[in-house]
This record gives sequence, C-alpha cells and structure tokens, in this order.
Amino acid sequence: MIRVGIVGGTGYTGVELLRLLALHSEVEVAVVTSRADAGKKVEEVYPSLRGYIDVKFTEPDIETLVDCDIVFFATPNGTAMQMAEHLLARGIKVIDLSADFRLKDAKQWSQWYGIEHTCPGLIAEAVYGLPEVNREAIKQAKLIACPGCYPTAVQLGFLPLIENNLINSQCLIADVKSGVSGAGRKAELATLMSETGESFKAYGVNGHRHLPEITQGLSNVAGKLVGLTFVPHLTPMIRGIHATLYGQLISTGGKISLEEIQVLYEQRYQHEIFVDILPQGSISDTRNVRGSNICQIAIYQPQGQQTIVVLSVIDNLVKGAAGQAIQNMNLMCGLKEDLGLKVIALYP
Amino acid sequence: MIRVGIVGGTGYTGVELLRLLALHSEVEVAVVTSRADAGKKVEEVYPSLRGYIDVKFTEPDIETLVDCDIVFFATPNGTAMQMAEHLLARGIKVIDLSADFRLKDAKQWSQWYGIEHTCPGLIAEAVYGLPEVNREAIKQAKLIACPGCYPTAVQLGFLPLIENNLINSQCLIADVKSGVSGAGRKAELATLMSETGESFKAYGVNGHRHLPEITQGLSNVAGKLVGLTFVPHLTPMIRGIHATLYGQLISTGGKISLEEIQVLYEQRYQHEIFVDILPQGSISDTRNVRGSNICQIAIYQPQGQQTIVVLSVIDNLVKGAAGQAIQNMNLMCGLKEDLGLKVIALYP
Amino acid sequence: MIRVGIVGGTGYTGVELLRLLALHSEVEVAVVTSRADAGKKVEEVYPSLRGYIDVKFTEPDIETLVDCDIVFFATPNGTAMQMAEHLLARGIKVIDLSADFRLKDAKQWSQWYGIEHTCPGLIAEAVYGLPEVNREAIKQAKLIACPGCYPTAVQLGFLPLIENNLINSQCLIADVKSGVSGAGRKAELATLMSETGESFKAYGVNGHRHLPEITQGLSNVAGKLVGLTFVPHLTPMIRGIHATLYGQLISTGGKISLEEIQVLYEQRYQHEIFVDILPQGSISDTRNVRGSNICQIAIYQPQGQQTIVVLSVIDNLVKGAAGQAIQNMNLMCGLKEDLGLKVIALYP
Amino acid sequence: MIRVGIVGGTGYTGVELLRLLALHSEVEVAVVTSRADAGKKVEEVYPSLRGYIDVKFTEPDIETLVDCDIVFFATPNGTAMQMAEHLLARGIKVIDLSADFRLKDAKQWSQWYGIEHTCPGLIAEAVYGLPEVNREAIKQAKLIACPGCYPTAVQLGFLPLIENNLINSQCLIADVKSGVSGAGRKAELATLMSETGESFKAYGVNGHRHLPEITQGLSNVAGKLVGLTFVPHLTPMIRGIHATLYGQLISTGGKISLEEIQVLYEQRYQHEIFVDILPQGSISDTRNVRGSNICQIAIYQPQGQQTIVVLSVIDNLVKGAAGQAIQNMNLMCGLKEDLGLKVIALYP
Repeated sequence: MIRVGIVGGTGYTGVELLRLLALHSEVEVAVVTSRADAGKKVEEVYPSLRGYIDVKFTEPDIETLVDCDIVFFATPNGTAMQMAEHLLARGIKVIDLSADFRLKDAKQWSQWYGIEHTCPGLIAEAVYGLPEVNREAIKQAKLIACPGCYPTAVQLGFLPLIENNLINSQCLIADVKSGVSGAGRKAELATLMSETGESFKAYGVNGHRHLPEITQGLSNVAGKLVGLTFVPHLTPMIRGIHATLYGQLISTGGKISLEEIQVLYEQRYQHEIFVDILPQGSISDTRNVRGSNICQIAIYQPQGQQTIVVLSVIDNLVKGAAGQAIQNMNLMCGLKEDLGLKVIALYP
Repeated sequence: MIRVGIVGGTGYTGVELLRLLALHSEVEVAVVTSRADAGKKVEEVYPSLRGYIDVKFTEPDIETLVDCDIVFFATPNGTAMQMAEHLLARGIKVIDLSADFRLKDAKQWSQWYGIEHTCPGLIAEAVYGLPEVNREAIKQAKLIACPGCYPTAVQLGFLPLIENNLINSQCLIADVKSGVSGAGRKAELATLMSETGESFKAYGVNGHRHLPEITQGLSNVAGKLVGLTFVPHLTPMIRGIHATLYGQLISTGGKISLEEIQVLYEQRYQHEIFVDILPQGSISDTRNVRGSNICQIAIYQPQGQQTIVVLSVIDNLVKGAAGQAIQNMNLMCGLKEDLGLKVIALYP
Repeated sequence: MIRVGIVGGTGYTGVELLRLLALHSEVEVAVVTSRADAGKKVEEVYPSLRGYIDVKFTEPDIETLVDCDIVFFATPNGTAMQMAEHLLARGIKVIDLSADFRLKDAKQWSQWYGIEHTCPGLIAEAVYGLPEVNREAIKQAKLIACPGCYPTAVQLGFLPLIENNLINSQCLIADVKSGVSGAGRKAELATLMSETGESFKAYGVNGHRHLPEITQGLSNVAGKLVGLTFVPHLTPMIRGIHATLYGQLISTGGKISLEEIQVLYEQRYQHEIFVDILPQGSISDTRNVRGSNICQIAIYQPQGQQTIVVLSVIDNLVKGAAGQAIQNMNLMCGLKEDLGLKVIALYP
Repeated sequence: MIRVGIVGGTGYTGVELLRLLALHSEVEVAVVTSRADAGKKVEEVYPSLRGYIDVKFTEPDIETLVDCDIVFFATPNGTAMQMAEHLLARGIKVIDLSADFRLKDAKQWSQWYGIEHTCPGLIAEAVYGLPEVNREAIKQAKLIACPGCYPTAVQLGFLPLIENNLINSQCLIADVKSGVSGAGRKAELATLMSETGESFKAYGVNGHRHLPEITQGLSNVAGKLVGLTFVPHLTPMIRGIHATLYGQLISTGGKISLEEIQVLYEQRYQHEIFVDILPQGSISDTRNVRGSNICQIAIYQPQGQQTIVVLSVIDNLVKGAAGQAIQNMNLMCGLKEDLGLKVIALYP
C-alpha cells in the first residue's frame, strides 16, 4: 500500500482527493493536515466521508509527513514551495495541486502571483503533470506541478490543432466558463450563493493567473510563443469547466476538412483513457463529466468557414485537480493509470 | 456473472441503475429496453456512460429478456404488472422500481393510481424491498416491490420511535422536501428549470400517492393503523430528499431522554451499512448523501419538549430508487449487501 | 419629500430598501451609511442601481443623519440600540430592521442574542411593525421594530386560527424553508454557493432566534403562552420563504369545515393589500411573490382530518424585511400604505 | 389609454409583457389570448399577477382584437405572419416579438425557420425594432419586428466598433450565454431542471437562427457582409444573456487606445437610456440587469493586444423581448421612451 499524505485537506481539492483515494485499492490515506481543523476527525468536517476515512486532521509539519510515500499539496499558492524541498530530501514524492511549480520562469511567477518564489531551484526539476503531454517524464518525476483547471481544459482542446500547425497560433481565443467551486472553499463575499446564483459574469479579463500557464504549455508545443486571448467566466453551478476555443485555420487550412480534423483528434487521443473525442455534431455538456476524470471534446467548423470551434469540458475538481493528481500518482508509482479513477459522472 | 435486464432504461432511475451496475463486479448488463430509443446505443443517449456500457436499447419484450437472471423495471407505473408474471414463470427474478406491487390492497392501489391493477394475484408474493425491515424475506423473494423515495426516507426516520411505541402514532407529521429529479425524465411544464429553479413549493397536500405506502409500512410496524399528515415539497435542486419528521412523545415519554432515544436509534441500525445515525447536534444535509446509497439521520428534541424532530436524508435516485434496488438484488443473489454500492457522496 | 437615511446600506436588506425607495414618489434617499464602503458611490458597489441612486456611502454617525425625517437601520443586531435614542431625541423617526427592539423582555433578548441590551428603556416604546396586527399603533409610532422574515410568514399564516381559538395553541408546528439571502451579505463559508447549492438542510433545530419572537407574537394573540416547534431550513435559492404550518383542530373543531376556515381567512385579511388568501386547492409557490411585498396563503385539511396545514409564502427581503419596513414608513407618514410597493413578482 | 392586445399570453415573453404593462400608466390590457388557457382568468395561470390583471384568456381571433390600438405577438414563429395583415388593415399597429418579420430575405427566412413565409409582402414594411439603431423609423412604423434576445446583446455590443470601422468585420466572434427562459415555456426534456441545472453546454454551434439576424444587422451598419462566428450556450440560470464579443483591431487600430474606444462607446450611447456603458475595468454581471430593460456594456483590451473584448449583458425577457417591445410601443405612440420601464434589477 502507498502511504499518502494530504497537506491542506479542507479545501475542495483536498476533500476531492479524499473522496477518490478512500476507494483507491493501493492507497492508504495516512496523514491529512489542516491548520484550522487540527484535532478533528475528517468525517466530522465532511460527513460525506463517514465510514470511509478514519483519520484526524493534524497540523501541517514535515515530521508527521515523513512516513508517507507521496504527499499531495492541496494548499493555497505559496505553501508547497516552502515544504517540498524537505520532503523530497527525505525521499518523499510530491504532487503539488497549487500553482507553485507550474511556471518555468520564477520571475514571471512572482509577477502573476504577487509573492516572491522561495524555491526557484526546484522549478526545473518539477514536471508539469499533464499526462497527455508529459507521460514519460511524469513516470520518472519526484515533483509534479499539477496543471490548473482552466489550463487542462484549454490545452487538451487546442493540442492537436497546434501540434499539427493547423491554426494561426497568434490569435487563439479561449472563452472559458467555470463552476464556482473553482474559487475554492474560502469565506468570500463574491462566491456566496446570493452573489453567484442566477447570474453569469466574466472576470479577470485583463489577465488571469492561468494565462501564462496556458501560454507556456501551448508555446512549448507550437515551438514558438503563442498569442492567446483568455476570458474566464463564472457560471452558476458548482462543478464543471466548459472551454469554447476558437482558432483560425491557416491559409493552407482550406485544404483540410472537418472530417480530417476529427480523425486527427481521435488519433491523437486514441490511447488516452481520460480524453474522449465525441462523434461529430455532439454536444459537450459539463454534466457528462461531473465527478469523473474525463475530458470530453467536440470539434466544429461553423458554416464551413475558417474558424474552428473546439468544445472541451472537464470537472474542474477531478480532471482539473484531484483526479489528474491521482492519475499522476498512478504513473509515478507504476500503477494502472486509471486505478481509483473509474468513476462515472453523476447524471442527472 | 449475473445477467441483468433493465426495462425502461431512459428514465432517471434507469440511467442511475446503469451508472451503478456498470461498475458492479458481479453483474453484466445484458439488455436495456426503451421504446423511444430502441436501436440507439446507450452511450449515445447518455454520454456520461461512454466507455462503460456497450449495449443498444431494444424494444421491451419478454423474449429479449429471457436470458436474464434478474430484470429491473424502471418504468412508469402500470408496466411491470403486465410483464412480471411472464418473467417469473420463466424463472427470472423481478425487481420493480415502480409502484405496481407496493400496496397490498389492489383496490386501494387502483384508487390512488387511477388504473385497474391487472395482476393482483402477484401482490401477495411481492416483498416490499426495504432491507432494514424485510431483509430475510428479500433474500428469498422472486419479486421485489422497491419502496418509493419519500417512503424510504420517512419510514427509516420513524421506525425506531414507532417500533418502541414512543410516540403517538395517530398524529405523525412528515414534512418532506424533494429535488426535482423525483418527478422523472418527462417533458413537462412543471419541472422546467424556469418553473422550478429559484422557487419552493408544496404540492399534493391533499393526498400524494406515497401516503398510503408510508401508512401501510408504518402501520405494519405499529401493529395498528397510524395517522399521518404527509406534505411533500419541491425544492430547487436535482437530487436529494430531506424528511423533517415530527412525533409527539406519549405521556410516558417524559421518562425517556433524548440521549436514550439517540442510543435506541444507534442500536436499531448498528448493523445497517446504509443507515447512518449522526452524532447529536449534527446537521443532516442532503449533499452529504448525494450519489450514495446512505440514509443519514439526526434526532432532536427542541427545548426538551414533547415533540421529537427527526431529520432523515437520502438521495432519491439511489437509496430512494436504483441503489436500494441493487441492495435488494445483492441480497436476493447471496452477494455482499454493499457490492457495487460503495460510492461516496459527491461533495461539493 | 420625506428625507430618508439608511444605516447599513451594504447588506441585502439595505440594498433592497434602496431598490424600492429609489422609485418611491414621496421619498428622497438623503444618506446611506456604510463603514466598509464610505466614500464610494452607491452605484459603484451596486451596479443595478446605476442611474437611480446618486449618493455616496458615508460613515454612520448621528450628525450626518440629523437632517433626515426617518432613519432605517439595516444593520447587524446591536447597532440600532446604540443610535436610536439619539435620533429619537432629535425628532427623527426610526425603523429598525434588525432584531434590537423585537422582544419585549430585555433579559430574554440578551439570552438569545448573546449580548447585553444597551437600551432597554426604549423597548416598551417600540411598536412591533406587523401592520396586519398593529396598524393603528404603527401610525403613531416613533420607533418601529420590524418583524423578522420567519416571524412574518409564520404569524400571518397562523393568526386567523389562533385568533379564533380553533387550534390547540400548545402544539403548533412551523416547518419553514428560507432562501440563502436570509443569511445576509457576509463572507461566510456556510453560505457559499458550493456549500448551499444543490443541497437542502435544516439548521437551528434546537433553537433559532426567531423562535421567541414568533412565540411572543402568537402568545399576544392567543392570550396565553403558546407552544411552538419551529424548524428552519435552508433551501438552494436566493429569495423566498415558504412556511408550512401544522395546527391541530381542537375538539370542537370537528364542527368547523375547511370551507368555513377559508372564509374566515378571507375575511380576516380582506382589507389587507399585502396578504392574499389563495383559492382552495392552490399551490403557494415562492416565485409568485419574488420581489413583491405580498404574502400568499393557502389552507388545507388533508384527508379531512384534524390537522390543518397552512402554506404561507413571502419574499424574505421584501415582506420579510425592506418592503414591510417601507409599509411601516408609509403608515407612520400618513401616506398610502402601498406607495412604492406596487411591484409585481418576477416570474419566471 | 392605449388599448393593448397580447396574442400568445402564456409564454414567458407574454407573461413578461403582462408584468410590465400592468403598471404602465398609459396602457389598458384589453385582450390576452391563449388557445390552451382560453376561458381561464390570467391570474389563475399566473398567481404573480393576482390583483394586477383582471382579464380572461380568450381564443386568438381577429374579431376580439379589433378594438385594440396595438397588438403584441408573443407567439411561436409562424403565427404573426398569418394575422398581421388583417390587423394592419384595420388600422391596428402590430409589434411582433417572434421572428416572422426580422429577416429581410423571405427565402433566407424559410431556410432557417423551416416553413414557408406566408406574408412576404409585409417584410419590407416591417421595421426592425432596435431603437438604438432605428428610432426614427420606429416612430413612424405600423409593424415592428422585435429583435431576438441574442441579436440585441450582440448588436449593441459590436455597434460602435463596426460603425467606426475599427475592427475586422470578417472575423467577428460572439460567444454568448443564455439563461434557460430563452428556450420558452414549453414542455421539453432539454430544459427540465434535471437536464439544465448544474450543467453548462454549447448548442447550435453549426448554425443558430439568430445568426442571419445578427449578420443582417451588423452588415447593414458595416455597409458590407460581415463574417461572424456565433456560438450560443445554455447556462444554468433562468434569466440573463451575457455576450462576450471578440473583435480584431484593424491595422490602423494600433493607433486607437482603449481609452478612446471607451469614450467612443460612451458618446455613441450617451442619449440612450437603456444602454449603460460601464466604467473601465467593470464587471458586467447579468444579475445587475435582471428584470430591467438595461443593456450594460464593458470594454476590454487584454494585455493591450489586438483583440478587443466587449461584454454585453441584458435580461433576455426584458431588453431581449418584452421590455424592448414596450420601448417600441412607447416610441410608436409618442410616449416617453421609458414609460413603464423604470424597473430596477432584482439584486440579489
């Protein structure tokens, strides 16, 4: 059994890790930390876990984590970068669900996150945990930077078009809609039900922290810096991300048909168990992946014009966070990639 | 492997059976019928099942079902009573999720359901599938009448009080709130999101079909006809039932304390894996059982007065329908009672 | 024009006062205070008011309020009792939407609200602002204690039964469901959309602050202390309260028919413009009063038994707060009672 | 008083007309037709209108409408084109909220709407009822084709950019999100709360009926055929449209700053009471216009790049339907343009 620790067990990504790991056949959840709830039983805070997790929250410190084989950080940004080095030094693998090691440029990181990066030395070593791009590196990794939720949906949706140089990489548009759980489990006015229920809005239009992450990922694939307009929105539901992606076929693009693009997507992801290319004409509805680790993708070319529209949906807490983290863990531990992740979406 | 057939696979209880059975280790879903969608692949109608269920909907007829070991009816009322006899005659066990065999009095059934009962001969043989009351009979049964969603939440909540004759069985009050999936997957004005979203209402105050079913169940336990006021409500969410139950302690009741009642509930359900008595003072929130087969119960005695308040919550589609049906199947087939039902609630 | 001041303009009752007063033909909103937002324009915080309210938030102090004719307190409990005396001394009328002056017993108030009452001397003078009970006193009042949202719905629903001594006043049951805006505009975990959306729960079962207020009001009418079990619930919507009330007809009750009770309700409220008795058999749906000052009531006698069920619905922010406050203001100022309150519910 | 008739009073646009017209000081609602509910009182079907509308639904026929001065069609497509001619012949003005007269090309209309246009002769006479573009023509009009909801939000958002030739009109992108009331009050599976709640999806990606309407409107302004990619989405709320519009500044565009574009929008709409340009950096949230006739617009230029992002929000049932229709009526009748439309959005 793999002994797992979770630092920051009281956020939504933390409790989602618990939901999935509690039924993972090769994992024992040994430590769950929470400064606020230390001393309480996990099931006391999360009655949905009664009977499944018999652990108490403890204070987050290195010593209580040293008996773990793997430690997940489901913490606010800025925490993992202070503890990762100590854990790695003890031979413990680290999977960070926060943003601390996602950007390769520490200076850029500081600009977007507003704090100094205290552990820039580890950035190079960290593997960006998008298995559909970095599978082999992940298998060898000691430190994983799990992708953000928006970046997961947007990159998986754009990848085949960019890898094949089919669209103009200088004018990508990602219009993305997220459920409110993406904002985390924090007492904030803006995510009260009275504020977000029955309403829809854009936010962070001038620049959201996931912009440099997506740009970095797509630029790596394009082999040059891409130009992306990324507009996130908040939609009145709890879970789910729906990315509507727009790309302009490049001049030679007129020669490729939608059918060919569809085939190209299907081939690109044919061995990916968690990326599902829908048949042409399908609707990609976030409910169809709610609670599951799957990314569903549909491709359109409205009126046969130059604009390709890709719909890419995930559950922000699963493929966009906890599920993807466990997928990484499985790969790092030589387990079947979908162990503990065969969860069917909750419909309706 | 148990070969399972599902008649009426396109309603919410049907698709919920599919979600749970797809991952059940001892079951093969062999036949799924749907008059409307015959010929289509199941995953075409339910993209959430892509990769998990590889069956086409077929027309509902006896011959396509004869190779099954067990057939579930997830049909509107009035269908199971026309097919059950033929299946039983062929040695196939039947689990009916509709109301056809729930009431022991065929005449009463006809009054409430507005159609003639075409198969009264089977009513006596049908076992009411509430395992917490009828486990031994269920194990031997050939035909199961699965309880309704409201009756499950209300009976489990009232049982210990009535079995111990602690409350006046003549003035029971059940104020129950249901998510809209309880109304089924039917094109109806009343359950449009524009009609039910952001609004709360009572309905069926003068008499809901689940009233005689609850009364029958509680009267069996009380040993006499109970008097129940049952008011169902529609609450703007998809899944979940919250029953708020009010009972008046009988005169000798002053001698029993809330602590003693709490113990009594815990003892009554100590071997029941799907009934969870919460610690005193707990909140029973429907989200904590969303997607799971568990009934969570909390008991209160406000201001130490004569009125006992019991909060009983379930997911109407799981413990209130498909999950309970599978629990019955497990019992009938000699399997572990929770096989395929270890599903943790989806929070948030 | 009546010069109005609002203390605490950034809560939901404050902004609802602004929505309604902005279009009130006899009112000028002169002062709106907010410690947090002082200096900002109201429309900056509430873009829905752009073009309707041209005032800046100011610090709450007596001197800025002295030019007002009437001051509304839309503040947390404990604020009005510190300022009311000074305003009254200057001849300014006060309408308190908080709980400070609702209970006639200062000691009881302190027990329920957990702080000392600093202004007990004014309690006797304060008129409980339920026009349907206290209209004449309100017209003469200098200080109004506006009823809470739950107490408004529950009292209006029970009144005719109790005034006519038709039900046993010792075992009243009020099972009440509220939208989340009732919890106020405060950064709190419990009312995040991720916590309250798609879920239903009871809370405060052992004792909610509105219990003594309702008990006081109904006891006044009954002429003796009533016995009430009051269970509040949180329902996943923003606005609306649905009270389901249960009363036991007293022995002589058998002689009164539902039709007679219906007539009795209609007569009791025939001159009340904001209480609407629905025809027999109607559904009282909270959406039908969303945004309006109306209380809709429906009366049932399930199966002709002893239990009378009354459904009483209001918008918690209008008839349960801001609308009722303005109704009081109209009465105090000799205006038409519905001035500024002819607002039709927003459906759908 | 203007005598008004409403054909098709039981859809959401019909009941919204009733909500607004009931309080319009110059209007008497004389006739409301409904095939399904003929004979019933309006308030019976819509309890939110109790006390405000004292009319019975009647069968829709010309003779009952001839005493009206103006008739609104809030009907499914294909009805107005059968009755308009007869009403106009009798001197009655017609405001059609359906799509019958929106497209100037009858053949194109038939292609998108799937039925023959039975009254092509009136198309030329019909004025497209977007006051911000056609005010003077509307004042003289006898027949108004009210814009669709999506077209209203998209056109108002793009107009200043296109009128000033600032963006490339060949690659406009409109990513638009609508609440479910836009789908109408029809018994349909797809808009059940269980289907649309807690989920987000795109639909009609290959071509939505509002595409030719928007294209026609913007092309008129551009002076040439524009190229538009329009992707509508369904968001889990009842009311509201949020259009996120993307335009590429043309080469000379580098010379115009965001500040100048902001000024240009403010000047374009400075005399428009129902178009509100928000200050730079504002969020345009649909709740801020819920129930009101206002379109709020915010303009962004992310990272100072070539892409201009315009956020345009309306209430689909008000500025997107009934409110705009009344605005047209006011203009046609020489009344103040905002008469009956000073309604503040319902927040929260």
